[in-house]
Amino acid sequence: MDNKKIQHILKSVQTGKITVKDALNDLKHLPFEDIGVARVDHHRELRHGIPEVIFAEGKDLEDIKVISDSMLKNSGKLLITKASRKVYKHIGPLFRKYKIKAKYFEKSCLIMAGETVRKKGMVAVLCAGTSDMPVVEEAYATASFLGSKVDTINDVGVAGLHRLVDAKKMLSDANVLIVVAGMEGALPSVIGGMTDKPIIAVPTSVGYGTSFGGITALFAMLNSCVPGIAVMNINNGFGAGVLAHRINSLIKES
Amino acid sequence: MDNKKIQHILKSVQTGKITVKDALNDLKHLPFEDIGVARVDHHRELRHGIPEVIFAEGKDLEDIKVISDSMLKNSGKLLITKASRKVYKHIGPLFRKYKIKAKYFEKSCLIMAGETVRKKGMVAVLCAGTSDMPVVEEAYATASFLGSKVDTINDVGVAGLHRLVDAKKMLSDANVLIVVAGMEGALPSVIGGMTDKPIIAVPTSVGYGTSFGGITALFAMLNSCVPGIAVMNINNGFGAGVLAHRINSLIKES
Amino acid sequence: MDNKKIQHILKSVQTGKITVKDALNDLKHLPFEDIGVARVDHHRELRHGIPEVIFAEGKDLEDIKVISDSMLKNSGKLLITKASRKVYKHIGPLFRKYKIKAKYFEKSCLIMAGETVRKKGMVAVLCAGTSDMPVVEEAYATASFLGSKVDTINDVGVAGLHRLVDAKKMLSDANVLIVVAGMEGALPSVIGGMTDKPIIAVPTSVGYGTSFGGITALFAMLNSCVPGIAVMNINNGFGAGVLAHRINSLIKES
Amino acid sequence: MDNKKIQHILKSVQTGKITVKDALNDLKHLPFEDIGVARVDHHRELRHGIPEVIFAEGKDLEDIKVISDSMLKNSGKLLITKASRKVYKHIGPLFRKYKIKAKYFEKSCLIMAGETVRKKGMVAVLCAGTSDMPVVEEAYATASFLGSKVDTINDVGVAGLHRLVDAKKMLSDANVLIVVAGMEGALPSVIGGMTDKPIIAVPTSVGYGTSFGGITALFAMLNSCVPGIAVMNINNGFGAGVLAHRINSLIKES
Amino acid sequence: MDNKKIQHILKSVQTGKITVKDALNDLKHLPFEDIGVARVDHHRELRHGIPEVIFAEGKDLEDIKVISDSMLKNSGKLLITKASRKVYKHIGPLFRKYKIKAKYFEKSCLIMAGETVRKKGMVAVLCAGTSDMPVVEEAYATASFLGSKVDTINDVGVAGLHRLVDAKKMLSDANVLIVVAGMEGALPSVIGGMTDKPIIAVPTSVGYGTSFGGITALFAMLNSCVPGIAVMNINNGFGAGVLAHRINSLIKES
Amino acid sequence: MDNKKIQHILKSVQTGKITVKDALNDLKHLPFEDIGVARVDHHRELRHGIPEVIFAEGKDLEDIKVISDSMLKNSGKLLITKASRKVYKHIGPLFRKYKIKAKYFEKSCLIMAGETVRKKGMVAVLCAGTSDMPVVEEAYATASFLGSKVDTINDVGVAGLHRLVDAKKMLSDANVLIVVAGMEGALPSVIGGMTDKPIIAVPTSVGYGTSFGGITALFAMLNSCVPGIAVMNINNGFGAGVLAHRINSLIKES
Amino acid sequence: MDNKKIQHILKSVQTGKITVKDALNDLKHLPFEDIGVARVDHHRELRHGIPEVIFAEGKDLEDIKVISDSMLKNSGKLLITKASRKVYKHIGPLFRKYKIKAKYFEKSCLIMAGETVRKKGMVAVLCAGTSDMPVVEEAYATASFLGSKVDTINDVGVAGLHRLVDAKKMLSDANVLIVVAGMEGALPSVIGGMTDKPIIAVPTSVGYGTSFGGITALFAMLNSCVPGIAVMNINNGFGAGVLAHRINSLIKES
Amino acid sequence: MDNKKIQHILKSVQTGKITVKDALNDLKHLPFEDIGVARVDHHRELRHGIPEVIFAEGKDLEDIKVISDSMLKNSGKLLITKASRKVYKHIGPLFRKYKIKAKYFEKSCLIMAGETVRKKGMVAVLCAGTSDMPVVEEAYATASFLGSKVDTINDVGVAGLHRLVDAKKMLSDANVLIVVAGMEGALPSVIGGMTDKPIIAVPTSVGYGTSFGGITALFAMLNSCVPGIAVMNINNGFGAGVLAHRINSLIKES
Repeated sequence: MDNKKIQHILKSVQTGKITVKDALNDLKHLPFEDIGVARVDHHRELRHGIPEVIFAEGKDLEDIKVISDSMLKNSGKLLITKASRKVYKHIGPLFRKYKIKAKYFEKSCLIMAGETVRKKGMVAVLCAGTSDMPVVEEAYATASFLGSKVDTINDVGVAGLHRLVDAKKMLSDANVLIVVAGMEGALPSVIGGMTDKPIIAVPTSVGYGTSFGGITALFAMLNSCVPGIAVMNINNGFGAGVLAHRINSLIKES
Repeated sequence: MDNKKIQHILKSVQTGKITVKDALNDLKHLPFEDIGVARVDHHRELRHGIPEVIFAEGKDLEDIKVISDSMLKNSGKLLITKASRKVYKHIGPLFRKYKIKAKYFEKSCLIMAGETVRKKGMVAVLCAGTSDMPVVEEAYATASFLGSKVDTINDVGVAGLHRLVDAKKMLSDANVLIVVAGMEGALPSVIGGMTDKPIIAVPTSVGYGTSFGGITALFAMLNSCVPGIAVMNINNGFGAGVLAHRINSLIKES
Repeated sequence: MDNKKIQHILKSVQTGKITVKDALNDLKHLPFEDIGVARVDHHRELRHGIPEVIFAEGKDLEDIKVISDSMLKNSGKLLITKASRKVYKHIGPLFRKYKIKAKYFEKSCLIMAGETVRKKGMVAVLCAGTSDMPVVEEAYATASFLGSKVDTINDVGVAGLHRLVDAKKMLSDANVLIVVAGMEGALPSVIGGMTDKPIIAVPTSVGYGTSFGGITALFAMLNSCVPGIAVMNINNGFGAGVLAHRINSLIKES
Repeated sequence: MDNKKIQHILKSVQTGKITVKDALNDLKHLPFEDIGVARVDHHRELRHGIPEVIFAEGKDLEDIKVISDSMLKNSGKLLITKASRKVYKHIGPLFRKYKIKAKYFEKSCLIMAGETVRKKGMVAVLCAGTSDMPVVEEAYATASFLGSKVDTINDVGVAGLHRLVDAKKMLSDANVLIVVAGMEGALPSVIGGMTDKPIIAVPTSVGYGTSFGGITALFAMLNSCVPGIAVMNINNGFGAGVLAHRINSLIKES
Repeated sequence: MDNKKIQHILKSVQTGKITVKDALNDLKHLPFEDIGVARVDHHRELRHGIPEVIFAEGKDLEDIKVISDSMLKNSGKLLITKASRKVYKHIGPLFRKYKIKAKYFEKSCLIMAGETVRKKGMVAVLCAGTSDMPVVEEAYATASFLGSKVDTINDVGVAGLHRLVDAKKMLSDANVLIVVAGMEGALPSVIGGMTDKPIIAVPTSVGYGTSFGGITALFAMLNSCVPGIAVMNINNGFGAGVLAHRINSLIKES
Repeated sequence: MDNKKIQHILKSVQTGKITVKDALNDLKHLPFEDIGVARVDHHRELRHGIPEVIFAEGKDLEDIKVISDSMLKNSGKLLITKASRKVYKHIGPLFRKYKIKAKYFEKSCLIMAGETVRKKGMVAVLCAGTSDMPVVEEAYATASFLGSKVDTINDVGVAGLHRLVDAKKMLSDANVLIVVAGMEGALPSVIGGMTDKPIIAVPTSVGYGTSFGGITALFAMLNSCVPGIAVMNINNGFGAGVLAHRINSLIKES
Repeated sequence: MDNKKIQHILKSVQTGKITVKDALNDLKHLPFEDIGVARVDHHRELRHGIPEVIFAEGKDLEDIKVISDSMLKNSGKLLITKASRKVYKHIGPLFRKYKIKAKYFEKSCLIMAGETVRKKGMVAVLCAGTSDMPVVEEAYATASFLGSKVDTINDVGVAGLHRLVDAKKMLSDANVLIVVAGMEGALPSVIGGMTDKPIIAVPTSVGYGTSFGGITALFAMLNSCVPGIAVMNINNGFGAGVLAHRINSLIKES
Repeated sequence: MDNKKIQHILKSVQTGKITVKDALNDLKHLPFEDIGVARVDHHRELRHGIPEVIFAEGKDLEDIKVISDSMLKNSGKLLITKASRKVYKHIGPLFRKYKIKAKYFEKSCLIMAGETVRKKGMVAVLCAGTSDMPVVEEAYATASFLGSKVDTINDVGVAGLHRLVDAKKMLSDANVLIVVAGMEGALPSVIGGMTDKPIIAVPTSVGYGTSFGGITALFAMLNSCVPGIAVMNINNGFGAGVLAHRINSLIKES
């Protein structure tokens, strides 16, 4: 469509219908969005395998289905966050229609289909307590879906650092660490004292009273005495997974 | 520069050096920003007479001078907000160099040069107390600078509504009202009950204790029982002046 | 009990068993709380007719019943705030048992029994909108229960000041005004410009977004440009009723 | 009623019963509210077609019905915001009684009857994501109800600017733009860089964690680097619609 | 001026130039503010002796002088809050010009002239610590200036209740109690348990850390378990003085 | 396991397989966590009788059961906080399996099994109102479970200090006082004026409006004019119980 | 004075002037405050050696001197917090007058005179960084002044736990630990995992941005995953010193 | 030192003085911190070239000098943040003493000495306005100091995206992007739509009113609709530089 427009201008130049000067003017006044569209498409191809992601909260079941259908048709891939089991049921027929295997993550309310099969690099996800599991799962599933190898170690509270023992190899193999914690959010600082790998800290809403649904953990992480910790929004395991994968992707495997 | 690039492609098409298809491809992959630049320039011409505005706070004296010089050279116009008298002194030579009359607004810390001479429409600025004057001045000067006729009525507190009497004609002539108030920020609600003109409310930091430097006035204005009041950031007389002028500009004078 | 202790000391003095000096010492080291109990009881008699008030929220049904029984037995009076209809049902038998007429206020969740019959003075309650009615009712019922004449005018928004017309006499008759408003909380300022009577402002949680459940109205009221407005906690019609009655009680009727 | 009072004074002057000086005095001491009432009525006539609006939240079904009946009888128009379907059902008989067509907007919980038929000008409503739809609908329906032509473009996130392409004509035709966004609320800044039309920004509660139910988007919009953006309360599509219509109404159509 | 307008209409009726009906119409459309002005003036006479008060913060020295001059000329009275000694010096000549004795309160930054000489009733001001003295002084001076008898008791912390002993008579004589406290703001609750007089609580900014400049004391006072406490803005001794005087004024002395 | 590793190194030294220098190096590079594990285990033995505590909120029923089983097996003790009755039911079979008596605290949602039988010292728990009972219960049960003698006095509001009379002996016997209060949180200050024992203040979420779910009480307690009060998180009776027991444990009984 | 009153009553009983019953009645109605005074004095004697403490901030130099004089005369002891060097200079003559050695703590702005010489028990103060030193000094000096042995270990950040090595003996000897930290406030959690002694956590205002002057550290400490940590107000080393001494005092030395 | 202790144990094993079992026990009870020390030292060697960093704010001049001296002696490297020019002057002699070239960054208050000479990889730093320069400088200098190649593009506001044109090559060469912005903090979202590189967003305190010293920008960045953005504390250019270098270091150069 827009291509046609530009083609038309170019042909007019070619055939001498309009001068170069006029063509230049026409092109300049073409809305940059036309080019923008092209760019986005091109861009998307470069990032092959990374579909847009649907944030299900506050969306109609039917709307989600329509978007999902379009995504599955185009890319064979689908990632939906904050989706209830009801959503999963509602779009179930699509997976049968396109013959793509899908999975629902109960704790993190994630729907995933068309996961990247060949994983690379290594991302480690740690959390302070078992109540942080939903966020861990979201981070794990996201990074894994996008193509990173991921491993997790749960329940590493300040009083349970010994649980890191068996995971030594995993920690030193990881390119990036995702550290998930609620309450006082001290774990990233403690872990940060033990590694020189990039750390992505995810505050969770675990706690009560002055935990303020995760704000205290968030602020604690932003104020860590260990410099250079990347902080995410509260409970944002998805964002942590994406960033971990972005960093992981930079590294060429030998 | 970028024009040259496009010109080069177009000439290559014209002379048959490259095919239309190749040219299309080249153009598509040109960064949209090139077009963007053009758009902005073009845009700026359409909005003739509206120079970029410099926010002086936190900028070096010398940096401000360099940017100001460039602006005065190109457009003969200059508006600097949050500028100390020191800034005004520092860039003083520029006004002599370009022979442009400049003015410094003491209360609102505004520097202005090359004001639009032919004013149109009508903007009315009201405030609750004389302590709100700096914000009134900023709104007044900005809208006036951009080309709006502006009139002001000061000290119209909830207990001084009678001061509106002499201004009746002005109020009904105005296309837009800017209402400036600190403390409990009730004035826009009260004025809003008396007019069907668009109202721009500007909270000020006048007050103490739970006025929280204007936050209480801001929130009160956002919650006005009079629907449709446009709210600005605290003390943002500049923004109010711009919006008032934008609205005022929509109206064709008969 | 404690009386016995003091009696014992006094008798010992009377009979010469201990000296005045020793008795003085004994009395001094008696815990002041013994006196405290007496003081409270005595105090309560002075304030005759003002029973303690039960804040029902978060209390067990059975606990409420036990306290209510004790109150009705002793004073024949009862005021319970934040009580569901379930509470009213549960303690229903008590009213039959003591043959005291009770009343449940649906909107304000107030249970009242043994209301003072002879009312005095005059308290006026005004509100900004019909959504503020529960708080109005709580203030009205409380002051009335304690013995004040109360009258109310509803729905006096900034855009409905004309509704005050028919109430002129009432307003000038009132000793105290209770002004109830949510959203931007501007009404007390506006009313404050029209009267020299003490004004009690009650912010309500009516509104959304940056009304923050009444906090914006509260802060606006605390920052009123009309000096000397008494402010209550959010939705605290009960407190307003008590204060209004306290002020009203100061005035000797002629 | 009040007219009678004034008439009586005037007649007394006419017939010489009282002097001009006495009459002047009498008039001065007439409560201004009497005049106020007249003013409001007169005002309402000038703004013909704009009924008062009912904010349904926290109001009784029956109260809403009574007010609605009165409005429909007087003006044949009705706009109720934040109304559940239950409210719509409850007042349904009124529409049959007055033979006025009504409509319920599911997403924005708006009831509308007696919409202005002849629309004028042009208001454009844009939003960042499909989760913002309820607010878009409220803004759309309100402005349209009041008499503005309105068009909408959904799902224009920062990553979807290309969706603006097909809407170019609409954007340049619009007198005012309403931009609706949650999360980081960046869209108004981005759109603001592309237009010189007045922009009304509406933050929504879409997001989680530190989106704080829309407060982050609100503050971001108030701090936009694009000067002169009008900001509304969180989710306040209704207010945006009113303001857009007010501005739109200023413009004489050619 | 406006009087002239009305006079003109009345004379026209008197002389038969216009009909009663036309006159009625003319009067109705006179802005209510004209009447408003009269009302305010009349009102001010009723409240004889209570001058407007100047909030000096953020005002120019010269502006303050001009307003003060006008006030002293008209009423012979003057009250300026938040005024530096510099302000006092600057307006000094006015007191000599009008031969009115003035006083500067160092701690509370209050300027006062033309204090009411005949005092009535009784207001008691208590504070928790000597650091609260500036607020005590402001409350004391204000109520006294307006015409109330005032007495103060300082340094009555929770650990110093025994200091109330010598003041027993004063407390029972007072019609109203002003209780000033910073830090945890518990004093009004404690005093509230000992009296049935109206209590006006003033939070102060005394404290550090989570006293948040008085916000903690403010919220504590709004949440007092003693019902009916009137709360003021932080450090607002002036408002407390006004309210105390308003309440005090209701009581007829025998 | 790790012991084996160290044993192996030591044996190698013993048998001369490796030099002391090499052994030193090996030991140095052993992850400190290995030692850490040992430390924790050893530590746990020292603190014999204090099992880890499960925070049930946000955990799966099955997860809680698995952890509980492991705890009961190892230590015969179990303490679960924030547990619904459903949790209690779900893990019921475990108590039968291990033949350990368990108890469910309805108000504080606490599950307890294997309570320490021999109590020592004395902890007193006071609260301001009956609505604070759940927190009192949590503190009581926790300290008692860990091995402290605990006594409670309820409903000691600022207006009910006389209720302390009968508890005089208890108060003077106690080593530590836990003071629980919501609303304005003044009780710890008042009690603090009467004792030189360590006071642990627990703010509760009892209240409404600006009590902000306990934040006001919390901040008031942190700002107490009585120095040295230990403050806990909102509703954190559990933490108060632990601290009280820790302090109580320091004291040798005679 | 009040003693005289009671003495008078007692003598009247002794001499038979009044009956026991009347005397009882008289005594009951004596204001409890009379007893209160006695109690406080008596109490103070029991707590011998603990003078009242002066909070210097916001107090006049002269006021401080007067209070200090009175304290030095009565108890020979003096502790002033938040005192500038100017204060120290101003009250200097007092120390010469009473021949009591005084000391000024530069970092914590503490004045101390008449320190308890015989120290007992053991309090350990730890801090996260050298910027926390002023708070450490305040805690140290306070506890020491009151009579506790105190030792300190500075700069024990999360990344400097090895600095605890040399202090092992000190840590195990201590009865109480005061842990001081700013920024993310994680240190008390980490230390809490290593000890079963009572921990007093003091958040400091060290940090920037979202450290919010210590609020983040405060909330983190209140949310510690280690249960039973006593939390103080921000920078409140004084309070920590008092509490530590109170706990320390409970322990009988062998 | 600690090594000696372990050596001693090992030698005792070697010489048969103690059994393996006893040695094991001894080692187990060695404080893990001994090992911790070793670990830290070892660790530091692994991260060769990364000295500890001094946060100068709130530290004594002399303290800073002592620590700096020790650092320069040991590593020949020094990085001090938030240091005034006074600090730079004070420690100046050290640079002469150790013959190490130092540099002071005026805007970001950074002192740097012994910068890594061989830089690798590529970090790009972008900012929204020239007022953000101090933070840009801090990020730039930190990453550069640690050994990353860094390039910067200033003043890329939402309205100045065209400035990215000349920097295309730089952007595609960069491994990580640091995006610095104040006010509404929208730039990271906009840039995030154009790249798949990891983005580190740094909010700055540039702005006024509801920018809340950078909190609005911070929250906006945490809520970006572009997933996976790493967020730093306000103005924390230092942290951004460290994280960027950590990520950059992961990538092997070809």
